[in-house]
Formats: sequence, structure tokens, C-alpha cells
Amino acid sequence: MKIKIINPNTTWSMTRKIGHCASQVVAAGTEIVAVSPAMGPASIESHYDEALSVPGILDEIRLGEEAGVDAYVIACFGDPGLYAAREAARGPVIGIAEAAMHAASLIGSGFSVVTTLERTCGIAWHLAEMYGMQRFCRKVRACKLNVLELEHSGSDAYRIIVEECRQAMEQDKVDSIVLGCAGMTDLCKAIEDELGIAVIDGVTVAVKLAESLVHLGLKTGKRGDLAYPLSKPYSGLLENFSRG
Amino acid sequence: MKIKIINPNTTWSMTRKIGHCASQVVAAGTEIVAVSPAMGPASIESHYDEALSVPGILDEIRLGEEAGVDAYVIACFGDPGLYAAREAARGPVIGIAEAAMHAASLIGSGFSVVTTLERTCGIAWHLAEMYGMQRFCRKVRACKLNVLELEHSGSDAYRIIVEECRQAMEQDKVDSIVLGCAGMTDLCKAIEDELGIAVIDGVTVAVKLAESLVHLGLKTGKRGDLAYPLSKPYSGLLENFSRG
Amino acid sequence: MKIKIINPNTTWSMTRKIGHCASQVVAAGTEIVAVSPAMGPASIESHYDEALSVPGILDEIRLGEEAGVDAYVIACFGDPGLYAAREAARGPVIGIAEAAMHAASLIGSGFSVVTTLERTCGIAWHLAEMYGMQRFCRKVRACKLNVLELEHSGSDAYRIIVEECRQAMEQDKVDSIVLGCAGMTDLCKAIEDELGIAVIDGVTVAVKLAESLVHLGLKTGKRGDLAYPLSKPYSGLLENFSRG
Amino acid sequence: MKIKIINPNTTWSMTRKIGHCASQVVAAGTEIVAVSPAMGPASIESHYDEALSVPGILDEIRLGEEAGVDAYVIACFGDPGLYAAREAARGPVIGIAEAAMHAASLIGSGFSVVTTLERTCGIAWHLAEMYGMQRFCRKVRACKLNVLELEHSGSDAYRIIVEECRQAMEQDKVDSIVLGCAGMTDLCKAIEDELGIAVIDGVTVAVKLAESLVHLGLKTGKRGDLAYPLSKPYSGLLENFSRG
Amino acid sequence: MKIKIINPNTTWSMTRKIGHCASQVVAAGTEIVAVSPAMGPASIESHYDEALSVPGILDEIRLGEEAGVDAYVIACFGDPGLYAAREAARGPVIGIAEAAMHAASLIGSGFSVVTTLERTCGIAWHLAEMYGMQRFCRKVRACKLNVLELEHSGSDAYRIIVEECRQAMEQDKVDSIVLGCAGMTDLCKAIEDELGIAVIDGVTVAVKLAESLVHLGLKTGKRGDLAYPLSKPYSGLLENFSRG
Amino acid sequence: MKIKIINPNTTWSMTRKIGHCASQVVAAGTEIVAVSPAMGPASIESHYDEALSVPGILDEIRLGEEAGVDAYVIACFGDPGLYAAREAARGPVIGIAEAAMHAASLIGSGFSVVTTLERTCGIAWHLAEMYGMQRFCRKVRACKLNVLELEHSGSDAYRIIVEECRQAMEQDKVDSIVLGCAGMTDLCKAIEDELGIAVIDGVTVAVKLAESLVHLGLKTGKRGDLAYPLSKPYSGLLENFSRG
Repeated sequence: MKIKIINPNTTWSMTRKIGHCASQVVAAGTEIVAVSPAMGPASIESHYDEALSVPGILDEIRLGEEAGVDAYVIACFGDPGLYAAREAARGPVIGIAEAAMHAASLIGSGFSVVTTLERTCGIAWHLAEMYGMQRFCRKVRACKLNVLELEHSGSDAYRIIVEECRQAMEQDKVDSIVLGCAGMTDLCKAIEDELGIAVIDGVTVAVKLAESLVHLGLKTGKRGDLAYPLSKPYSGLLENFSRG
Repeated sequence: MKIKIINPNTTWSMTRKIGHCASQVVAAGTEIVAVSPAMGPASIESHYDEALSVPGILDEIRLGEEAGVDAYVIACFGDPGLYAAREAARGPVIGIAEAAMHAASLIGSGFSVVTTLERTCGIAWHLAEMYGMQRFCRKVRACKLNVLELEHSGSDAYRIIVEECRQAMEQDKVDSIVLGCAGMTDLCKAIEDELGIAVIDGVTVAVKLAESLVHLGLKTGKRGDLAYPLSKPYSGLLENFSRG
Repeated sequence: MKIKIINPNTTWSMTRKIGHCASQVVAAGTEIVAVSPAMGPASIESHYDEALSVPGILDEIRLGEEAGVDAYVIACFGDPGLYAAREAARGPVIGIAEAAMHAASLIGSGFSVVTTLERTCGIAWHLAEMYGMQRFCRKVRACKLNVLELEHSGSDAYRIIVEECRQAMEQDKVDSIVLGCAGMTDLCKAIEDELGIAVIDGVTVAVKLAESLVHLGLKTGKRGDLAYPLSKPYSGLLENFSRG
Repeated sequence: MKIKIINPNTTWSMTRKIGHCASQVVAAGTEIVAVSPAMGPASIESHYDEALSVPGILDEIRLGEEAGVDAYVIACFGDPGLYAAREAARGPVIGIAEAAMHAASLIGSGFSVVTTLERTCGIAWHLAEMYGMQRFCRKVRACKLNVLELEHSGSDAYRIIVEECRQAMEQDKVDSIVLGCAGMTDLCKAIEDELGIAVIDGVTVAVKLAESLVHLGLKTGKRGDLAYPLSKPYSGLLENFSRG
Repeated sequence: MKIKIINPNTTWSMTRKIGHCASQVVAAGTEIVAVSPAMGPASIESHYDEALSVPGILDEIRLGEEAGVDAYVIACFGDPGLYAAREAARGPVIGIAEAAMHAASLIGSGFSVVTTLERTCGIAWHLAEMYGMQRFCRKVRACKLNVLELEHSGSDAYRIIVEECRQAMEQDKVDSIVLGCAGMTDLCKAIEDELGIAVIDGVTVAVKLAESLVHLGLKTGKRGDLAYPLSKPYSGLLENFSRG
Repeated sequence: MKIKIINPNTTWSMTRKIGHCASQVVAAGTEIVAVSPAMGPASIESHYDEALSVPGILDEIRLGEEAGVDAYVIACFGDPGLYAAREAARGPVIGIAEAAMHAASLIGSGFSVVTTLERTCGIAWHLAEMYGMQRFCRKVRACKLNVLELEHSGSDAYRIIVEECRQAMEQDKVDSIVLGCAGMTDLCKAIEDELGIAVIDGVTVAVKLAESLVHLGLKTGKRGDLAYPLSKPYSGLLENFSRG
């Protein structure tokens, strides 16, 4: 089975980290391919960045379909382009926010999200609503960290995130903490060990969900909203997105 | 005052029609500029098309900001890229689905949407939810028409749409019908005259809302989720979207 | 076009202020008539006051219909009698709470209401729910001011309101503040200038919405819940409300 | 204990019927007083009628307070003026729609309302929402009967209502039917006997709820939204509503 | 009329207290029988305890049906087994949380619950949602008291509960406080007298609701979800629960 | 890894079928143990049956904990005792309705449930609400089949279920069908092949979810509502449920 993880930003150090963490949780026969698109933003911290990451995601889906990929993970906590990607893909496509929130709802009564910048908190709440997970989401907390600070080995990022997670644990009446950025995937176990509460990283959960769905033969429904896009011309920079 | 209407698809016959209808409802001092982006899909009928229309919209917002535009209307019933556009713009940005639904909620207890393809009905419902208008939306009805059939003078599109509107009027207990495609803007008054029920075209309503907000000095909030995007590099085809 | 603004309380100093502010935002051809009913409470600060303001409102609607009024604004933040007024009127009827909340939802992710007495906060929440605006309303804050203190030139009202707005701005994660009393209409720009956040006065927004709907030919739906009241006898003090 | 039932319309034949039915369900020591106000509409079939019934209701509350009434029932299915009445009263005030819906939720998973005119269905749904009973309400059905047809002994009203109740029973998956008009109170047992499903009349349920609350010493809360109205002048026809 | 109150735990001192309080509020002809089941937990403080209390409750319902009981009250604030009990009973079955919340919604705009252990707060919220009472519930507060501490005459329980109720009164903007444990039934009036706010004990309200429903001839609906359980074998310890 | 599947009814032919289907989807190192409790109902078709199945489930959880089980699946579509089981277990506990609904929400916009008896439809809706899956659930359809008819090889059960699934596929605008009974687990692929739409069996999905959570180290949260039950005495038939 082949699962492609698309990190929608173009920061390959993050992509490699994501791919590494994902590889450690899959079954023997599951191949993980982690990529960043050839176009798009260096990090995703706004609706604007999200919107401009989607063409790259869809390009990677197209390549994945040609290469026989069985399932995809979109590895950005805003789950950008999730429905567009599902239209273009045959197999399942899972967002990491979606995966993490679902998992959290299975092991406890409530979770808080700890994410990067304040301005993305509304995006997380909107996702919680769309996935039906709002009733389990107690709070979305921002660390006031830029996404790329997670890539600087000398930064205070880890300590700041741990402290925000601690506050969530102590104040929000939660059973788990959902990490609100794909770039935090490598911190998950350390935070869990330090705090003694379940910490959920969407990357690894999404990969296991995707693997499970493929194993069960469940694919994206093609009878309704998520049918393949209709064939039509695309112009200008995006002309290569036309579908045969 | 300058209002820019962005038809997110690249079909200029539709853009001209939209611009013409919009021009007829604004005040003397209001200038209407209607454009299609230089890139993107010929019509928008899926999440995929929506996603690929957004870079073009954002490009037009950038050009508009440089040209001193006071407000924008996104003239596609899926309101693609609305929040990304709001981040990039100083003044108000109004979607036509948003505008039409708001207006319908002011003049009656309920409305139905009559749109093109079945597969876009879910998008309309999602918008109704996001705007708080779900409680007024009785039904979203599809005419099973492709968007571009609205541009063919010899097509049955008008009759098919009228008949679907008639069914909405007779079965859905509604006070108005919201036309679910910018390409229907020129049909609004004819349907209203034929059926005797309020028919709401989002293009003209959005233009009047935008004009009113500008007149009242109300701009897009820049203190939270809708602040200007952060400066960062963009790669590949999209490198020109980097912000200073 | 003739727009009638009904201040449902009988305090004419407030009515004049409202009329003055409204006149400044309408187009050249729009005539503003601002009135207080001949019966009712001096101010509206409870369900009881609201209920007793409605006969006066309906009387003014009747007079307006005879005088060919095109649209009405109910200028009290509880929007008293809105649906009854819509039944009795041919054209649109807009409440100022309704208008302000709608506008706030178009320019940002969230707003707080700053109103007069604590006991009216529940009314504001209920309106937010009815209009579908609850998802944008972060908080309803009371200044603990009586409505008529806004009419006393020497009162501390302005300072108290500004301070409550400042708290909303700093604590509620909002993009705008909605003023929760028609009597605050003249303070809007001053507060906005002092705080640097969008401050929304329902009176002026409602007038622009009403003007836009009339301009677009949109009237109150008469096919369902909002059809004209049935003809029947009324007794006692209210016998003159019988409809032919 | 003294319970005052206010039929908010001025049709005394209905008032007597309501009083008679109510008297049959109370305990030995409970006195029932059923009245119609001295002012208002002959029947209530719109928001307009509801609004104009409220001054008469509040007048009766005032008289009731002077006479030491312990609790009130508002006997019109729109529960007009319920919150205003609660502000003015010391003891509990119960609406018949409120009472009937609460009772229905205690004895089954769902109920349908069978009411008079189509145009009032929206009012019933709104009440269901306000009382938290929307999740139990399967459908609101109109018999297309004017309220006063229920007072004509030779009318087909009974048969028409039974048939609509039968449809509710057969199609709506309900455990009970709520009668949507105080004027149907005398038909309750006959319909129940004919159809073999629980039929709930709000008048009798409201009286028992009011009696129970008084017995338990529970009064309308006076600490918040429902505190007594503030003292202030009222003008014109309504000047007598001023409170000391 | 015979009303059976089932205290689902096996602590008879609490059962006697509940029976005593209930007896004081019913009409002359109403007989109260208060029992604890022959099996089950000594107190109920978790989903686990709730689940294990239900067989005992259903056993008491069976005995009650044989003895001609007219209605039942389940006297534990988690309302364990409510729907199962309704299936097995002919007459109404009322939970004390259900009763208290309904009553609170009739006399004010909001209530807070004051209960025993933190871990049961989620159960109370879930009940509020199921009964449609979530919109009236401002907060669920835990006293951090074990249920059985309420049975120790020398404990600080009363003082701790009063202090939590006081906080609810001062901070939660409520019109009443709902006591979140059947074992608090005897404290209700004392707290109300001390604090001067309505305090609602579900036991007495449930008894009055049950009495009212019986008086009105309203029984549990047997046409749908709450029909009698189908006849089938039960095995092991529970074999006696088989129904003829 | 050891996963225990608890079929809460005592019909071992169904238990074996469930165990067989589950065994076919797990990874090499995962051991499946499928059991029925030693006490309880032969089938589960009501709240009453559900309630009486829970002691047996909890007994099996206790045995499982002693035997080092890593995760549990409750294999009845009502997910009886789910929260009580989570309190008693260290590892994850997954219900099959929960699992199936979650999976359906990941591969499409909507699903319908096809279950056995009409009277259990309300239970399925309630679960959808509790899990946040109501927004994806289009309809719950009953086949009017008793659970045990699924165990009779000569019955028409398969054909009846297929026809109901076909109606769901054609009328409900769904991307998948969720089978609403553990006893249908062996029919899943045949129905999917016959109809050409995704058909989701909760047993196999729940097993894969449980396996994934264990693999990721995610356990039931023990800090809040789902902490281990407190130690206390249990009486009568249930005395063995006392926890040390």
C-alpha cells in the first residue's frame, strides 16, 4: 500500500520530519512518500496562505493518481483543499486536523488544540465544526509562534508549546491535547512524557486512519459532491490543471 | 467610489453580463469594474474548480488594492476565496451567496436556492451554515444545468430554471428564491415577473451591500483572523504572490 | 424614496438625533422621516417596555402605508414588533439590531454588543439567535446605564460606553463593536476614532440596508408568515387597529 | 391558591370554555379565574394580532397582582407576551404552548403540533426553539381553519382537526399530538379516544404546571432579565401602564 | 394515585429522606412509595455506577407494574435508565434532573447546577442537551463532595454546598440553582432561605410533574421508541428480567 | 496486541461470525478474542435490552483487564455501556456505531444507516448526535427485521436489507451506507458488490480503529469523566461488580 503525505508548504525540512514520523507508525507493507509541492507558500498561517497552497496540493494528487497512490494525508492543520483533493483522488484523503480531532473524541470527553499563531484559531474552530468535532473541542490555544520557528533547532519553541499544553491540561478540563501544526509532529511523545496527558499528533493518526481505510477497501465516494471534477479548460498559470 | 466585481471564472461573456447588471443598480458616483482573472477555470462547478479560481481572485485583489478599489464583490455563488480575499483587501469583500442569503433573511421567513448542478448543493448549504443563514434556507435545488449553458442564447436554461423556481415557490414555503449562480443575474427580473415571488440575484445585492458599507466607512477588520497575510516567500508558479 | 424611522420610545430628543444621523448617510433622492409614536414608554429597557411600544410602532406603520412610505427602520436595539410590522407593511422593515449584526458579520469574524442595562442582554442574545448571527456574537456587554442617561448632555455616559467598548476590543477577540442602543447613534464615529476599531451603529446601517432593498425592488414577502394581517375586530383602547 | 387564565383574545365564549376545562383538572383548593382582556383582537392569527393582544394581557396581570393571584396561564398557543408578563408578575406565568410541549417531551420521543392557520406555523416552531423543545417537535401542521371557526357549533372544525391529527399519527413517528390552539381544549379527550394516541391540550397542562410550581414555592426569578419593569412614564392610549 | 420513587442506589437513609420530602408536597390522595433496589451500587458517581444501577431500577419498575403504580420518579440526578424504565412502564416515568431543569426553565432565563463530584458534570450537561435544556443551563458546578458525605450528619457538606450555590448566584447570571443530587433534597429550603434565590430540588418537582401527568391521563407513549420491550430470553444473573 | 470484541448479546452464533470477520482485517500480530457475556439478553432491540446488556459488558471488561487486553470493541450498533466501559478500561474502547459513522464521515458528505427494527432508529440518531456525526447522517432506515432473523440461514434477511440499502442509495443523496447491526457484518461486501456503493460495517472499522489507537499509544483518558470508577460496595446480584 502506498500513502502519500503532502506537506502543503514548501519547507522541505518540515516535510522530511513529517515523513520520518509517519514511517515509524505504519505496517510493514505500507510505503510512505512525503512531499512538498513545487509551488506555494513557505508556511501556512492565514486563509491567504491556505488558498495558495491548494494548487500545489492538487498537483501532487494528480501525480499521486498517476503513480497509483492508495491514500493521501494533507499535513497542515488547516486541512487546506481537503474536499478539492477528495474530488481529484480515487482513494481516501485525510486531513491531519480531521484525524487528530476524531482520535481525541474516541479516547476522552474533550480536547484542546495548541497551535501556532492566534490568527489561525478561527480556522481550527471552523474545522471542528465541519467535522462535527466542535462538541469535543474545549479551547483552541495559540502559542504566538510562527510555523517556521518550529524548524529552528535553537528556538524556544518546544518550551513555549509545552507551557501552553500545560495550561490546557490544568485549565480546560480535557483528556487530551491536539497539536495544531504538522511541524510539531516530532514533539508529541516528549510533551506527552513531560505532562502525563495524551498528546495527539495529527500526522501519525492520519496515516493510520488512511492505512485502515485502504485496508478495509473504503474509498472516497464518487456518487455525489466528491465525484471527479468535470473536464473543462483552465487558463493562464493554471492551464495544466485541465483534466482530460 | 470604485467597486471591483471579480467573476472568478474566465468566461468573459459572463463577466460582461455581471458588470452590466451591477452597473444598473449603483449610485451616480459609484464606478463598477468587472473582471475575470488571468488564470483559472472556465466555469466553477466543484471544490476543485473553486480552489483553482482563488489564485486568480487574489491576483485581482492585489491589482485592485494598487488601483485604490474601495470594495470587492466575488461573483460566483460558492463565494470562493472569500476569507483569503478579505485578508488581502483593505475594504469590504462581499460574496454573492452571502449577499443574497442575507437579503432574503431580511424580507421573509425562508428562501430556497436554485442552482446549477446537484454536486454544488452541498457547497451552498455549507455557506448558509457559515453565514448563519441555515435557519432561513429551506432547500437547495439543482437545475442539472452546467454553468456555461447559461451563456448559450439558444439553450433551454431559462425555462428549466423558471420551472425549478416554480417548484420551490409551490412546495418549499418560501418568501423568496435565491438564484444560485452569477450567470443567472440577467434572468432575475424576468423570473420574478413570471412567478410573482421575490427572486434575489446575489450580484446586485452584493454590489449594494458593498456600496453601503463603503459609504458608512466600514472596512474589513484587521485586528484578528482577517489581518493582512504575513510576508513570506512563495515558490514556483505562484512566486508572484509573495507580499512585500 | 421615503424611509420612515420609528423610534419606538416617546423621547423626541432621541428621535431627532436618530433622524439627523440617518439623514447624513442616505442618497440625494432619499427622504428620511423620523418619528416617535403617539403612545408608549419613554424608554425601552425590558420585555414589558418593548411589548408596550409595539402598538405605537404599528400605528406609525399604518400611517406610513397611507403616506406611501417605501421602507421602515425600527430604531430600538430590541427590534420590537419587527415581524408584526413586516406583516403590516408593503415594503421592507429593518431592525437596527438586525442591521448592525448583519453588517458586523460582513466585515469580520466576530463582534461584541455594548448596550445599556444588564437586563436587556438576554434580549440581544435572542435577537442574535433569531437572525442567525449568534455565531458571530462574542459577548453582550452592559454599561449599566439607563437609556435616558444618553440624552443628558452632562452625563458620564460617553466615557462609560467608551470604556466598555475598550474592554470588548481588548478581551473579546472581535473585529467590531455593535452599539446596543439607538440613542448611541451620534457617538459612533467618536468611539471609533478614539479606539481604532470598527464601531457599528445600527441606525445608519439599517437605513442603508432599507434604501438598498428598495432600490433593488425587494419587498416584504406576502405569501407566508408575513402576509397582511387578517381583517377582524379589535376592542377597547385598541379598537382603531382593526384593519378594513 | 388562585390561578388566573388569560385568554388573550376578546372572544368570551372561548374564554368560558377554557375556564371550564381548566376547572376540571385542579385540586380542591385551587380557584380558577378565566378572563379576556378589555382590549385587543377577537382572535390571534398573526404576529400583528399577538402584538396587539399583549397590552390587554399586561393589564390583566396588573389586576391579578392587585388581587393576589398566585400564578397565571396565557391561553393562546403563541404564548404572546410571556416574558413581559413574567416581568410584571410575582408568581409563575406559563404559556400553553410551553406547557404542552414540555409535557409531550416527558411522555415520548416526539410530538407534532396541529394548529389552525398555516401562517402561524412559524410562530410555533419559534416557540419550540425558545423552549428547547425543537428536538422533540417533528412537524407543525395547519388545519387551514380560522380560530373562530372553533366557536361555531355547526362547523366542520372537529372533523378537520381529527383528520389532521390522524395524519400526524400515521406519518410523523410521534408519541403524542399537541393541540395548537386554546380553542381546541374541549376537543382533547374526544380526539384521543377516537385516535388512540395521547393528545395534549396546553390549557390543562399549563394549569397543572402552574399549580405545581406554586405548591412548591417556585416563583418567577426577579434577579435578572425578568425583574420588575423600571418605573417610567407611558404616553397616549397606554399611559395607564406606567408603574409606580 | 400511587407514585413510586426509585432511589437507584442502595443507601436506604437517603431513600427515606427522599420519601419524606416527596410526601410533603403531594395531594391528599397521592400515595408515595420510596424504595431502593435489591441490587446495585451504594452511591452513583460515574457511568459505571449508573449502568449498574439500572437492572435494580428495572426490577422495581416490574414490581411497580404488578402493584398498579401510576407513575415513577427516578431519584438520582443522572436519571439512569430513564428510557429503559419508560419502555417497561405503562405510566409516566420522570427523572429528577429532567424535572428540575424543566421547572427552572419555566421560572427564569437560566440556571446553574450544583452537584457532587467533578466527574459527573459531563453527565449533567449531556442530560441538559437531551432534554433540550442546554440553552437554559449556564454552568454545572461540582462541590467535590462524595454522594455519601451528604448522609453524614456531622459533615461540612451543607456549608460547602451553600458556598458553591452562592458562587453560582453571584457569578453565573442565573435565576435559580438546581441541586444536582437526590441526597440534597432536604437542604433545598434552607439554602433558598439563606441565599434568597430559587433553589430547585428535582425530587419534589418530579413528584409534582408525575402527579400532574397522571391526573391529566397522560401516559408514556407506546407507539414508537418507548413501546414495551419485546419478549426474549435473558441469561445468567439477569435471567429473571425476561418478559412474558 | 490483544483486542477483545464484546458482542453484548448472548447469541454465540453471532459472536463467532463477528470474531471471524474481525480476524480477517487485523495485522499479523493482532489477536482477536470475541465473546458474549455470561449474562444478558439474547438480542438487543430496545433501551431495556441495552441496559440489561451492560453488566455483562462490564464483566467482560473486568476479565479483559485482568488478561491484559489492549483495546475493546463493543459490537452492538447501540454502543451500549460505552462510557461505563471506558471508565473501567485502561485502553481504548470503541463502539461499532461510533466507528462506522466516523469512517463514513471521512469518505463522503453523507451516509444513511440501515438497521433492524424501527424502534431502534431513535437510538441511532442519538448516537450520531453524541459523536458529532449528526451532520453527516442523512437518514436512519429500518428493515423491520428482528436481530435474530439475521442468524437464520433460510431467512429473507439479506434480500430485505439489500433493498433498503438500495433505497438509501437512490433517495438519500449519500456516499455510503452504514450497516446498523453487528449481525450484518458478514453481508457487507456482498451488498457493496451488488449495489456499487460503499457499505460500512462497524465491526471491522472499530477493530482497525482500536488497533490504530493502540499502535499509536493512545489510551482512554483517566483525568476526567472517564477516570476509573470509585471503590464502593455493590449489593445483591451485582455484588461482584465492586471494585477493590
